[in-house]
Amino acid sequence: MTTWISRRTDSEIDAETSSTTGELAGLRLAVKDNIDVAGLPTTAGCPEYAYSPERDADAVTALRSAGAVVVGKTNLDQFATGLVGTRSPYGVVPDVRRPEFVSGGSSSGSAVAVARGEADIALGTDTAGSGRVPAAFQGIVGIKPTVGVISTAGVVPACRSYDCVTILAADLALADRAMGVLAAGAPGRAWPSDTRLAAPPEPVVAVFDPLPDLDPDWVADYERTLAVLRERGARLVAVDPEPFLAAARLLYEGGLVAERYSAVGDFVDTAPEHLDPTVGAIIRGARDIPAHRLVTDRAEVERLRTIAMASLAGADALLTPTAPIQPTIAAVTADPIGVNARVGTYTNFCNLFDLCAVSVPAGAPGFGVTVLARAFDDAIALDIAALITGHPLTHPWPTRIAPTHDLVVFGAHLRDQPLAHQLTDLGARWAGEVRTSPHYRLAALDTTPPKPAVTRCPPEESGVSIAGERWLLSPAALGHFLAALPAPMQLGKVELDNGCWTTAFGCDGAAAAAGKDISEYGSWRAALAAGATT
Amino acid sequence: MTTWISRRTDSEIDAETSSTTGELAGLRLAVKDNIDVAGLPTTAGCPEYAYSPERDADAVTALRSAGAVVVGKTNLDQFATGLVGTRSPYGVVPDVRRPEFVSGGSSSGSAVAVARGEADIALGTDTAGSGRVPAAFQGIVGIKPTVGVISTAGVVPACRSYDCVTILAADLALADRAMGVLAAGAPGRAWPSDTRLAAPPEPVVAVFDPLPDLDPDWVADYERTLAVLRERGARLVAVDPEPFLAAARLLYEGGLVAERYSAVGDFVDTAPEHLDPTVGAIIRGARDIPAHRLVTDRAEVERLRTIAMASLAGADALLTPTAPIQPTIAAVTADPIGVNARVGTYTNFCNLFDLCAVSVPAGAPGFGVTVLARAFDDAIALDIAALITGHPLTHPWPTRIAPTHDLVVFGAHLRDQPLAHQLTDLGARWAGEVRTSPHYRLAALDTTPPKPAVTRCPPEESGVSIAGERWLLSPAALGHFLAALPAPMQLGKVELDNGCWTTAFGCDGAAAAAGKDISEYGSWRAALAAGATT
Repeated sequence: MTTWISRRTDSEIDAETSSTTGELAGLRLAVKDNIDVAGLPTTAGCPEYAYSPERDADAVTALRSAGAVVVGKTNLDQFATGLVGTRSPYGVVPDVRRPEFVSGGSSSGSAVAVARGEADIALGTDTAGSGRVPAAFQGIVGIKPTVGVISTAGVVPACRSYDCVTILAADLALADRAMGVLAAGAPGRAWPSDTRLAAPPEPVVAVFDPLPDLDPDWVADYERTLAVLRERGARLVAVDPEPFLAAARLLYEGGLVAERYSAVGDFVDTAPEHLDPTVGAIIRGARDIPAHRLVTDRAEVERLRTIAMASLAGADALLTPTAPIQPTIAAVTADPIGVNARVGTYTNFCNLFDLCAVSVPAGAPGFGVTVLARAFDDAIALDIAALITGHPLTHPWPTRIAPTHDLVVFGAHLRDQPLAHQLTDLGARWAGEVRTSPHYRLAALDTTPPKPAVTRCPPEESGVSIAGERWLLSPAALGHFLAALPAPMQLGKVELDNGCWTTAFGCDGAAAAAGKDISEYGSWRAALAAGATT
Repeated sequence: MTTWISRRTDSEIDAETSSTTGELAGLRLAVKDNIDVAGLPTTAGCPEYAYSPERDADAVTALRSAGAVVVGKTNLDQFATGLVGTRSPYGVVPDVRRPEFVSGGSSSGSAVAVARGEADIALGTDTAGSGRVPAAFQGIVGIKPTVGVISTAGVVPACRSYDCVTILAADLALADRAMGVLAAGAPGRAWPSDTRLAAPPEPVVAVFDPLPDLDPDWVADYERTLAVLRERGARLVAVDPEPFLAAARLLYEGGLVAERYSAVGDFVDTAPEHLDPTVGAIIRGARDIPAHRLVTDRAEVERLRTIAMASLAGADALLTPTAPIQPTIAAVTADPIGVNARVGTYTNFCNLFDLCAVSVPAGAPGFGVTVLARAFDDAIALDIAALITGHPLTHPWPTRIAPTHDLVVFGAHLRDQPLAHQLTDLGARWAGEVRTSPHYRLAALDTTPPKPAVTRCPPEESGVSIAGERWLLSPAALGHFLAALPAPMQLGKVELDNGCWTTAFGCDGAAAAAGKDISEYGSWRAALAAGATT
């Protein structure tokens, strides 16, 4: 059993489980052993490198504060360098379902702990695919957020510029819930004021054409996934994979590996006998790369990124297989570098291009697909991943983290009404039905399309409660929406039936007074159904 | 005369001048000779490196499209490596007023061309201070925008990650005008949705304490500048210079120099005899720096930046001398590296920390001060620089480039009224007085503080024109402002006397109807003066 490098005793775990509170109370948490947990050694997959951290990594602090209970530290490809799960002196981590296959890495033990039911959620890290590949191979979900939004304090660096903390869980809803806790509690890079909060109703999803590489046994599952997306409203568009693949090659074949030497090179130089031979060769090979090569390679990554992102213009996300193959342990042993590189075909470019990603299972054992989206479009990646799984998320974690404002609408901007696209085009997210307090009037205005005016009754008059819908908008989206709003519509505050005042549609008083009173219907939809709006 | 490396003939210039149109029509433009102008060689200060560009650099295209006329290409410290103006085979560029002193570099010829009146505006570049130091020494203005907002396509790289195109001009207004054209025509990095558009009325300005180094002859001018800022409403706060200076040292003493080798190393290796000896030594010295050293140094810059930016929390800008000394040519000859490094004390850290900067003359010949601000706070740096010069700018260039929306206010948010700070706290910029079309009513609401309700009259009634004021807000600021706005106030569209509909304050109809009609006063200020608002 090579899943765990260190494990707390059952009595310790049970004692803590019985006393925790919070959103994740009692959920068992596995922590990849390159992430600090106070009281357990951090080995990064190398016993001689081990140290005893005095405090939890920021990410661990966040999850524990919400009630998650650390089970132990999980095996990994040494120094998080690998995508296979075989590069560890603590032993090869085999696939849960087919033990002749690799588990995927570098977060091998974390993925297996979840897949075996020994943990509910697990922390991984992901620079080149280490959080996504083992998720796919083990049939679970892996969320790799936008680089930098989760603190990496207390994590042994692999490639500091591109390292991410990730979440692994059996299903998207739980992974999403844990991400929300993590992102709120271990904040890093600030979310922009124009963060998009939802995929549009009919998202545009780019797919590689030609698809560079895929196990023939997985082609049908891949095609089926595309068909599911189409059925559920997505429009698929083709993009050239070449700039993505060219950048992927630079992650290991160029100067960027120097980040790995910078992280642990001093140790590697003084203790070469303790290293996994493949990992040692990769890191030592980076020692003498000149700095100007790194500069040139970074500039090339940037050049490729510009081309790749231009090719994604108009697309909401990119869908790829998570990995083209799941190799056997024997295949990796025979060609540790070559097979590993092939496994990373669809994952290596992601962090270099500042993309976020969600991997979900998609058919045969080991086959997963990844939805990749632009930095901070994490909610969009999740929504499209949820289209694939068929279980939509109500409030994906970025909507709980990014700055947002509410807007209550009553008429033409109700979901499925003619102007709702003005909100979804701005990345707004539908957030449920609401009613005003019983102090309002509803009038039908003589506009095109017809619009309602919701106005507050004078204190001496009795009003009604009006049905509306709440949308969530980024601050910039709310500003843009207001700036584009024509007279006589106005935005201000409306009192809801729970007593809260929220930003909502209002109307210039004279225009509202000139409208036809339809308060008796209590909602625009009811008035529409009755033919009372014109 | 070492100002120019190549110059167009007077007849060419005159012919073009007579036919240009646009915002900069006929302004004479000097271009630093590391920036491409089609038809003139680009030497970067090294005749053997010269090539003949087929097209203008993006920055040149932008200025020429607006009517600026290229006079010629100006001398520079070779490969933009230096702050002195002596490192060029085309000759030392002396100070205009005191020829035994250096001109400052690396944009030496550009600054001198403007100072001598041979050009109205000049393009420079600035990585370590090359656009600011020569501006200060030559008694002119240098604007170094946020890294990346101006395209560097067609510019010979020095340190690609940190290179900026800059503008030099005799006064702030002209430099600002040219920047507006440049930024609109050669766009790079996108402006965020929450860009602050103005310095607050009483800006907080950080100053180094202790001040690390300053020519004793300049101390009185520096103190006088601080006094001027205080008199004009700024509050000065002390910050520790050490993290700034530590980063400054890394620009030349560490791995970051490898960017210079990456840019021109191949040439330097094949043609060492053509190099300025100091420049050659610097660039050659970077050849063998290992990549992991660059990684480590970049991480250290990031660590220092975090500390430095935290020390600036609450401050709108940082004020420093532009350079601590203006050395003589003899002093530079005696110690070319040491004196150059000292000159860069206050400029080297700027681009490493992703700051923008404006240098303005501040007293004795050669003495300038620089206002530094956070990335995209370019308008704030300009406003505070204008506090020093005493000539405020109405629409500094970022307000013409960043995304903005209008908001017309009528009462408590008028400039100098009690709630105006809600707008200035959000970085809003006052943009002038306006009047509505004569179809409105003004009422005084029974609120604290008193507020007016501006509502449109029904078509059958006659109204009045109401005086208001226009503010410019970022999209996110407008969203935040709306989200914080209490009932019964609303925001919507109001018709101005020019027939345009603009976003403005409105009011819930019932609340407005319950207010006291004060339309006869035509403005909230007039009603206030008459005691009619309560």
